Amino acid sequence: MTLLDQTRAAVTPVDRAAAARAQDRLDRKTTPRGSLGRLEELACRLAAVYGTADPLLPARAVVVMAADHGVAEEGVSAYPQEVTAQMVKNFLTGGAAINVLARQQGARVVVVDMGTKCPVALPQVRDGRLGPGTANFVLGPAMSRETAVRALEIGIGLAGELAAEGVGLLGVGDMGIGNTTASSAITAVLTGQTAARVTGRGTGIDEGRLRRKVDAVERALRLNRPDPADPLDVLAKVGGFEIASLAGVILGAAAHRVPVLLDGFITGAAALAAVGLCPAARDYLVASHRSVEPGHEAVLAHLGLRPLFDLDLRLGEGTGAVLAMNLAEAALRILREMTTFEAAGVTDAGA
Amino acid sequence: MTLLDQTRAAVTPVDRAAAARAQDRLDRKTTPRGSLGRLEELACRLAAVYGTADPLLPARAVVVMAADHGVAEEGVSAYPQEVTAQMVKNFLTGGAAINVLARQQGARVVVVDMGTKCPVALPQVRDGRLGPGTANFVLGPAMSRETAVRALEIGIGLAGELAAEGVGLLGVGDMGIGNTTASSAITAVLTGQTAARVTGRGTGIDEGRLRRKVDAVERALRLNRPDPADPLDVLAKVGGFEIASLAGVILGAAAHRVPVLLDGFITGAAALAAVGLCPAARDYLVASHRSVEPGHEAVLAHLGLRPLFDLDLRLGEGTGAVLAMNLAEAALRILREMTTFEAAGVTDAGA
Repeated sequence: MTLLDQTRAAVTPVDRAAAARAQDRLDRKTTPRGSLGRLEELACRLAAVYGTADPLLPARAVVVMAADHGVAEEGVSAYPQEVTAQMVKNFLTGGAAINVLARQQGARVVVVDMGTKCPVALPQVRDGRLGPGTANFVLGPAMSRETAVRALEIGIGLAGELAAEGVGLLGVGDMGIGNTTASSAITAVLTGQTAARVTGRGTGIDEGRLRRKVDAVERALRLNRPDPADPLDVLAKVGGFEIASLAGVILGAAAHRVPVLLDGFITGAAALAAVGLCPAARDYLVASHRSVEPGHEAVLAHLGLRPLFDLDLRLGEGTGAVLAMNLAEAALRILREMTTFEAAGVTDAGA
Repeated sequence: MTLLDQTRAAVTPVDRAAAARAQDRLDRKTTPRGSLGRLEELACRLAAVYGTADPLLPARAVVVMAADHGVAEEGVSAYPQEVTAQMVKNFLTGGAAINVLARQQGARVVVVDMGTKCPVALPQVRDGRLGPGTANFVLGPAMSRETAVRALEIGIGLAGELAAEGVGLLGVGDMGIGNTTASSAITAVLTGQTAARVTGRGTGIDEGRLRRKVDAVERALRLNRPDPADPLDVLAKVGGFEIASLAGVILGAAAHRVPVLLDGFITGAAALAAVGLCPAARDYLVASHRSVEPGHEAVLAHLGLRPLFDLDLRLGEGTGAVLAMNLAEAALRILREMTTFEAAGVTDAGA
């Protein structure tokens, strides 16, 4: 049995009884029932994942998976591929958006080079390299099925390591010039939407490039014919190293009962694949924000997730995921620290 | 010249040049232009308020104004009036939702008794009492015009004190059984909407009580005929002690160039009155969340504010306002701590 198969088998349903006990605790707090809205929902979701109505405040980390994409040759991005490795270096110096926001939220940033065009080769970056980027999937599969499995298992291994180190709340993020194109292709296949519907402007391309991008996705799907019933086939044919490894992180976290805060469209596409491989993983996911990318809507609808906020973000890197950690903390603190009507001597209308 | 008139005159337009300089700084950061969406907008708004493109992280406080409402006699709430004072005591013991969330966000909680039915009379609560609650505005004005001015000036004085103590980011919150009824009346007058349109279920009333509540607002407006062109008249006739004093806090904060994070519907109604009294105060406001209360939408539209998040909150106390402090901090940190394309050696597409 492979690590991937073991992990899929290890993901158990979340604990709905713990969620119900958490809601019961919340109902006795000094607020009108349900008046904390989605914070209550989030508290119950986390209780279900942790299997207790009294979870501790978890240690936090965000995994940023980086890789390049052969499809960038098709002129689908405003940035050259070199930017992927440049940004990985930027993550290591602490000056990128994800560093600033993770510092604020008390989250450790774990950066993995899954295969940038120019290797970063610095000790602070984890080496998961599967090559100098994927092949251009307009001309053939992005990677072999075996490589897709390796990418997933690297993610699974990392999630297991972080869980063993005590991380109890995991954000996921991405960096990869061209990766919205791959995410659009994955989303089109796994949600059954047209390429035009789920392809957007990524980092900010103009109308001409957008047409080229939609065309690239359409050509890739016609040529490779990824099988919607086989998420591994989809990841191999039109995925990316970082996307497949993010799917692995999600499965690994779920297997260790660690909730995963998704970021935007790319991590959403990874989640589609992960949930395709293991439907029970869905309940371990929290959607942080609604991305500007049009394909994100299809992802969220397919996964049945409603994001916590909509700040018009379209950066990636895990920025939305770490911002949502503050809300996860708020939800857990409400559950743990608030007093009850009875203890406070406040009259409860039971409303 | 009264303190109220002095304060209105002291509110100057925000510094649009500082906002433009902040946007220019953000454009050179290592992200595609505009990709941090509303965090960038928030950073620029704060820069405009502070008058600098390089603001420090401000000290935070949330003011919770509490008072009772004579209109509660009409059976408009699910809770008895005693709950207002009970909740004020709860705020002082640290177990209420606002305490938990303010502690998380590093904000000091300042609780003011503006006139609860049962006086709290504990040293930790500030005494702003103007009586044991307002008069029932279905039978006559809630308070005299002079009392409304006093309430405003108490708020102005408190905002000045906090600004002098170094508070640079101020949340506002409310506690008062019956105060969504007063807020609906204020909103109906100042936005020109019907009572039915801007009256909702508050802490969670049933259909029968909702009809009674709409009827109470309609009767109050017919009897008192508050003048939409005179916000003081509106506050006096159908307002509340805590709502008027919150309007004062907003004006006082604006006069000291301190941005104000609004909470939900009640603080929104206070903001309507404050902006009516001093239109320049509008640009000092940040809408934190979109409340479940239907009248909040009318408030936001009238003020031209778009909330940062929508978490289905309907608690009040300033809970949404303190949650938004985390986003304000994120926006300011992005502005201060992120590196530029040039410094990081990352290729800028200028996209």
